[in-house]
Amino acid sequence: MRTVDPVKHEAKRRQIMAAAAALFARKGFERTTTADICARAGISSGALFHYFPNKRAIFLAIFEQDRRDIAAYLAGIGEDDDPWEALLGLIDIMVDGIEDPEYAGLALEVMAHAGHDEEFAAMVSGFDTELRQALTGLLERAAARGRIDAGLDLAMAAEWISAMADSLFIRAGAPGFVPAEQLRMFHLIVARFLRVETR
Amino acid sequence: MRTVDPVKHEAKRRQIMAAAAALFARKGFERTTTADICARAGISSGALFHYFPNKRAIFLAIFEQDRRDIAAYLAGIGEDDDPWEALLGLIDIMVDGIEDPEYAGLALEVMAHAGHDEEFAAMVSGFDTELRQALTGLLERAAARGRIDAGLDLAMAAEWISAMADSLFIRAGAPGFVPAEQLRMFHLIVARFLRVETR
Repeated sequence: MRTVDPVKHEAKRRQIMAAAAALFARKGFERTTTADICARAGISSGALFHYFPNKRAIFLAIFEQDRRDIAAYLAGIGEDDDPWEALLGLIDIMVDGIEDPEYAGLALEVMAHAGHDEEFAAMVSGFDTELRQALTGLLERAAARGRIDAGLDLAMAAEWISAMADSLFIRAGAPGFVPAEQLRMFHLIVARFLRVETR
Repeated sequence: MRTVDPVKHEAKRRQIMAAAAALFARKGFERTTTADICARAGISSGALFHYFPNKRAIFLAIFEQDRRDIAAYLAGIGEDDDPWEALLGLIDIMVDGIEDPEYAGLALEVMAHAGHDEEFAAMVSGFDTELRQALTGLLERAAARGRIDAGLDLAMAAEWISAMADSLFIRAGAPGFVPAEQLRMFHLIVARFLRVETR
């Protein structure tokens, strides 16, 4: 009996998703073919369908992967962890990918695609809501422990932090964009905005 | 001899641009027809061509209008004006339009269109560069007069302020988006980030 090695299966799935993400970012979703994806991932088109039924499923899986990574991070935050440090960690996961010029453009593609794919738009919007709620929760804990300014509208602050993270993906890949410097300034803006003393 | 009243001509041009902007925001550039624009602007299709040769020219004109409004504002800033107040004024002009739900979606349409129209992408990018340079100039004057933190990388700070303004257009029209509250928090973020004492 043939068996599927789940570790190898997952590794191959991620390899296909990475190849597809780079192509979607550069060529757009519409113009990318499954043949392009197979060529870049180094697999046969017959093999592709053991992992994904179609191109759209790969697009959704890339997005779902981010969602799972963030859910796993949130689940791992303990009651005793410093909420400000936890917030910075969440920000770093949210901006994961800006250092890779291959994926610059993917965020715009996601937004453009959401404009004419209702199911996908609902997924993106649901994810944004979850993320803002998680951010708001961390901000509330930080405010309760006196780590940040408790006088702010924390739900709106979470919205702004999320929008700033998104802006990095829109700008990633532009001339003169240095990811590490941008991330340092992002941390500084958030720290000063929330009135955290930088340590 | 028939003459053209330049004031009336300009008013009609603006009326056509406003009608087109609302349609582009809601339906997208591709799906909007010149017939739609004429119907909404309340003019005949014969009359349209006294103002614009085609749909693309209207799209470019909407964008150029913003550019001219900002250039006019910048030209009016005097050497003796407080650079921090001038910066807040510039921000308010940059975000002009977020209070109108009709235009929500136009920023995304501009970005999407820039993705497959090289001449337009070059215009957008040139405008962004000009705007960031103007912001940087005001930040440098504010820093020189001790109004803001002079230790920041001011060109990168200008990039962030510009990205935050853009994010308002991306979020405008979302459920729970209250323009005046968002603008107040935008001012607060910038003031705290730059270490200006709010008065």
